[in-house]
Amino acid sequence: MSREMDKPLISLHLVDSDTSLAKVPDEAPKVGILGSGDFARSLATRLVSSGFKVVVGSRNPKRTAGLFPSAAQVTFQEEAVSSPEVIFVAVFREHYSSLCGLSDQLAGKILVDVSNPTEQEHLQHRESNAEYLASLFPTCTVVKAFNVISAWTLQAGPRDGNRQVPICSDQPEAKRAVSEMAITMGFMPVDMGSLASAREMEAMPLRLLPAWKVPTLLALGLFICFYAYNFVRDVLQPYVQESKNKFFKLPVSVVNTTLPCVAYVLLSLVYLPGVLAATLQLRRGTKYHRFPDWLDHWLQHRKQIGLLSFFCAALHALYSFCLPLRRSHRYDLVNLAVKQVLANKSHLWVEEEVWRMEIYLSLGVLALGTLSLLAVTSLPSIANSLNWREFSFVQSSLGFVALVLSTLHTLTYGWTRAFEESRYKFYLPPTFTLTLLVPCVVILAKALFLLPCISRRLTRIRRGWERDGAIKFTLPMDNALAEKTSHV
Amino acid sequence: MSREMDKPLISLHLVDSDTSLAKVPDEAPKVGILGSGDFARSLATRLVSSGFKVVVGSRNPKRTAGLFPSAAQVTFQEEAVSSPEVIFVAVFREHYSSLCGLSDQLAGKILVDVSNPTEQEHLQHRESNAEYLASLFPTCTVVKAFNVISAWTLQAGPRDGNRQVPICSDQPEAKRAVSEMAITMGFMPVDMGSLASAREMEAMPLRLLPAWKVPTLLALGLFICFYAYNFVRDVLQPYVQESKNKFFKLPVSVVNTTLPCVAYVLLSLVYLPGVLAATLQLRRGTKYHRFPDWLDHWLQHRKQIGLLSFFCAALHALYSFCLPLRRSHRYDLVNLAVKQVLANKSHLWVEEEVWRMEIYLSLGVLALGTLSLLAVTSLPSIANSLNWREFSFVQSSLGFVALVLSTLHTLTYGWTRAFEESRYKFYLPPTFTLTLLVPCVVILAKALFLLPCISRRLTRIRRGWERDGAIKFTLPMDNALAEKTSHV
Amino acid sequence: MSREMDKPLISLHLVDSDTSLAKVPDEAPKVGILGSGDFARSLATRLVSSGFKVVVGSRNPKRTAGLFPSAAQVTFQEEAVSSPEVIFVAVFREHYSSLCGLSDQLAGKILVDVSNPTEQEHLQHRESNAEYLASLFPTCTVVKAFNVISAWTLQAGPRDGNRQVPICSDQPEAKRAVSEMAITMGFMPVDMGSLASAREMEAMPLRLLPAWKVPTLLALGLFICFYAYNFVRDVLQPYVQESKNKFFKLPVSVVNTTLPCVAYVLLSLVYLPGVLAATLQLRRGTKYHRFPDWLDHWLQHRKQIGLLSFFCAALHALYSFCLPLRRSHRYDLVNLAVKQVLANKSHLWVEEEVWRMEIYLSLGVLALGTLSLLAVTSLPSIANSLNWREFSFVQSSLGFVALVLSTLHTLTYGWTRAFEESRYKFYLPPTFTLTLLVPCVVILAKALFLLPCISRRLTRIRRGWERDGAIKFTLPMDNALAEKTSHV
Repeated sequence: MSREMDKPLISLHLVDSDTSLAKVPDEAPKVGILGSGDFARSLATRLVSSGFKVVVGSRNPKRTAGLFPSAAQVTFQEEAVSSPEVIFVAVFREHYSSLCGLSDQLAGKILVDVSNPTEQEHLQHRESNAEYLASLFPTCTVVKAFNVISAWTLQAGPRDGNRQVPICSDQPEAKRAVSEMAITMGFMPVDMGSLASAREMEAMPLRLLPAWKVPTLLALGLFICFYAYNFVRDVLQPYVQESKNKFFKLPVSVVNTTLPCVAYVLLSLVYLPGVLAATLQLRRGTKYHRFPDWLDHWLQHRKQIGLLSFFCAALHALYSFCLPLRRSHRYDLVNLAVKQVLANKSHLWVEEEVWRMEIYLSLGVLALGTLSLLAVTSLPSIANSLNWREFSFVQSSLGFVALVLSTLHTLTYGWTRAFEESRYKFYLPPTFTLTLLVPCVVILAKALFLLPCISRRLTRIRRGWERDGAIKFTLPMDNALAEKTSHV
Repeated sequence: MSREMDKPLISLHLVDSDTSLAKVPDEAPKVGILGSGDFARSLATRLVSSGFKVVVGSRNPKRTAGLFPSAAQVTFQEEAVSSPEVIFVAVFREHYSSLCGLSDQLAGKILVDVSNPTEQEHLQHRESNAEYLASLFPTCTVVKAFNVISAWTLQAGPRDGNRQVPICSDQPEAKRAVSEMAITMGFMPVDMGSLASAREMEAMPLRLLPAWKVPTLLALGLFICFYAYNFVRDVLQPYVQESKNKFFKLPVSVVNTTLPCVAYVLLSLVYLPGVLAATLQLRRGTKYHRFPDWLDHWLQHRKQIGLLSFFCAALHALYSFCLPLRRSHRYDLVNLAVKQVLANKSHLWVEEEVWRMEIYLSLGVLALGTLSLLAVTSLPSIANSLNWREFSFVQSSLGFVALVLSTLHTLTYGWTRAFEESRYKFYLPPTFTLTLLVPCVVILAKALFLLPCISRRLTRIRRGWERDGAIKFTLPMDNALAEKTSHV
Repeated sequence: MSREMDKPLISLHLVDSDTSLAKVPDEAPKVGILGSGDFARSLATRLVSSGFKVVVGSRNPKRTAGLFPSAAQVTFQEEAVSSPEVIFVAVFREHYSSLCGLSDQLAGKILVDVSNPTEQEHLQHRESNAEYLASLFPTCTVVKAFNVISAWTLQAGPRDGNRQVPICSDQPEAKRAVSEMAITMGFMPVDMGSLASAREMEAMPLRLLPAWKVPTLLALGLFICFYAYNFVRDVLQPYVQESKNKFFKLPVSVVNTTLPCVAYVLLSLVYLPGVLAATLQLRRGTKYHRFPDWLDHWLQHRKQIGLLSFFCAALHALYSFCLPLRRSHRYDLVNLAVKQVLANKSHLWVEEEVWRMEIYLSLGVLALGTLSLLAVTSLPSIANSLNWREFSFVQSSLGFVALVLSTLHTLTYGWTRAFEESRYKFYLPPTFTLTLLVPCVVILAKALFLLPCISRRLTRIRRGWERDGAIKFTLPMDNALAEKTSHV
């Protein structure tokens, strides 16, 4: 021990650092594996390279041996499970029962359940694989772990992002032992509590972009509504009332009048919840009051909504750039020229039209440019390199600039059209007028919050000040959200 | 201990890995918290989930209790601070003095100052919050820590990027104790030395993209100058001398002749400092001579300048694609067609003009494409996955290709215009001629450095060789820079 | 020890966390450095700041002292190497022999070789620097480490991505000691086994985007072929047969007909190997059979091929948007208009042409949009934040959608042209027809795999089921690949 004492700085590191040591047989701890699938093999490979002694149990060792790294000892199940303290169960749920014959040898040992159910299995069984295993082996301690790690990651070795290994068990000691192994294998154990969390853990690898579901549906919904509306105005009305065939507009032109509406409304929906949250705080005179759930969720999905808005805006740009490529555009030009000649008009120029177009194109480009900055800074690797102030500056200040720019883009695009009766096809107002509502509300509210009296109050509330008699019961998570909104 | 000894590989991991252990009451260390704000609560939540026993001190425990996780014990301040060794002070600076009543119970304990001043406070007080706290409690050891972490991060748990927790204190033992807690909570402590660094640490969350300030101002300055210049040439001159109203060009056309100039000059400014550094090294015959500060800073801001250059180039592309969308463009076309007809010219074709345009458009696209590769590889997550050689290959070789391509783009765009008197409006040369200066210097210099005699010498110098009598006094950081430049 | 025992949660952390402790002289371990170059100095800086006592050996201490951090003691080589156990050799290979004078003092110590050979040196010497050093100092233990770390990283401190430090040596104990130092310095040691791996390690910093080599050559090859083909059809044929001068098409128009072909073929080559792998698995009735090497490599390069496909597609978009900017386009329009007038045709409109163009433009934009999503999710920081299911959903499902969209884009672009004799210049079919082959095969195969009978079989095979008598001999890595393909 003396050596340990006089230079602790190093000696205690011993473990994280060194795997070579583990290769010295008598020092390496023994680990058992049941199963011979991909995962079992990748697990064996990783364990061996992390300096563990691996014993694989198989019903047919001869056949299986070839599949495992030579360093791993492959033998009959009974023999394999006899000596090691920790045994990984890498077989499908349906085969768990086939292991019951080993229950005597397994008594008192730690079983690590690494299985992942398929979607069907997960829905079908109310009881997690791990709990099922525990019920089959009451004399063992079952630990759920590594199920979120793919065989591929096990072999290639963990990379930055996906090093976390959730672990749960009813027995702290067992959980710790497995956590220690995880670290030695280069992963970061995350304590998930008791075995009851196993079901939740087994759901993790099944989750499919949950945060994107609602925002995507929202965007799709908006798209469909606006597309229908534009179809009626730009295609149906001319067909019905002027019996003009404008159906060729469906693939590009109508899509391109729809996309900006979606992008614009989505963008305003990114900043609306922040405004609502602030209003609530002002009314309640405290930030320690729980937000309604719908607002919480909305606040948490702002990033996704914003990115979808950017995506639509980008598509809008692409579609716009395609306009002059269209054959119809060429024909229109030529026909216009011919008309001019036949009408003996030598010079065609409408100053107002020119100005309108130049301005709103320019504003559109600037809005898209600003949005792209927002999109880039929401990349994990960049967001993580910003401090809170920088992040909120980009996301809320720059974002608001983008909102203002796109509002101006819309207004200049609309110009006086909102007031020309001819624009009201089927008495339907021009599309852009519909989109202006929410954004303008947001912008006005933001402007109000800048009034000294209000802004000072808001700041005080957000620093924790409370109006007397402001009711407060809250969950920590809401504070964080309150804080978050306080930056947006 | 024996168990510890025979399988050290595991036993020593015990701590990093396991938090469940801590949950066993008698083993969990006790931590005190003073304050009931967002941060106090998030801190409590995190500490509890990391296996600490948390005692919160409040002037009104009953009222406060509801705000904290049930696992945390909320009591009167006097009682709360009595037993734990480490006490987090999570109150605003202005309330520090209100804690003086506790000084007897706090004597000899570790106070962790987690506070963050507002910008005003930071400017107003020359003495950091932590130092102020220390002055109020001379009998305690004050440690500054966790101030860079937001309440949100504390609750959601640290993610890849922002796990670092700077820590400073005058007392190594205290610093270590807090560092240990930080690790248990999943953060990476970074030693910032003595408490004197507290002020610097308190400035961290206040910093707002410092590295971007100068480059952004530079870009803006360039934009304004070039915009004014182009305004005079393209709008004012026709108005004054030919009394033609070209003001409609302001929003798009003039911007679009300005952006490429900015982008192009910025790009050349990315590679100029490298050339200067190399020249300096050649003249001095050593790389161990400190660079002048302005050059150091310039070298350190190349990335930002480059990204701004890319941003302008991208906007330039967008604006260019907008040109044919403009009403003015349509009118020009039609009027041209009409003119043709009236002049009875059946076929219009200027081979030279056609070639010029085809070539410079193609070169422009290629330049932008190359720049986009540079931009992508400067994303943290990608830059980190490249080794030094790969990074410098992309950043310096590919970057140089981009510079050459944009030079050719400019030259073909200019074509013979530089030599046509008609192009000199108000005797002002065409804008592109002004932008060519710096880039050409850089390209020539780079070409010179490729001459065997020079390149061999440079390589030798950069491998550490020194001309006799080369003076050398230097700071390590400069070497790194020297090395860096040696790759650019 | 008692203190250690009663609060292990903290005491054992001691080391990772605290560097200040190390600053207390008598506790800090001593480390020697030979050399005074950039790396030596950056190393010294880092070691000192990580709490080590650094002794630098120099032939001319007076001269050298100024270059090192004041905390580092600079003295004569003999003296420097006497006390420390671990000595970093930071000199160029050619100077190794100059250290032979120290062999007596160095006997029994650990020499850390941090050197990096230049490309020439690496090719020239079959024996790694480390092994060469070992041969010069048979009485010492040589460890190869830190060579992948740049002086810059050593000083600035490691960031997320590049914290890994490969280490190899024939002596486990020595390897461990150095690994421990690496961790204390904030790096992640990676065990590379025996000193024989030194050569491989020395090659690491020399590697230049190896994964990109083949895909890039492939893309270039395709580009050249298609460019030549299009040149013959669009430029040569009109010149020869109709003696029309279309050479102005070379810079933009021909490139823009070539890029989509390359992008499209590359995209299909991303999904072809997955189809082949599945077919192989079906035929063999097992997934535990090794894939042929070429298929393995192909599977591993899909990401790069896909990104190149996206890059070409993006360039294609940019070029397309440039088309209406070209002077030739303007002339064509005007001439067309004039022709119309002279022919007294008042109205020009070809419904079919209009529809064709609108549809394929729209499909093109959508395809590019989908591809951009794929490109974004293949960024390390994003890919790491997705679980396996999400990743494979985006990469395989969305990717397949992109393939289908671009196929439709190609078909609508081609319209009936494949069946018009006039389109066969020199009897050469239109380019797009050539590109359709592979993608259609892939799409058909994918469709087949969706047939219940086949898909069920495939799923079973991929869950590990095997047809009786399916031969199996395999290496773990292949399983992982097999698994990977099972998601694509």
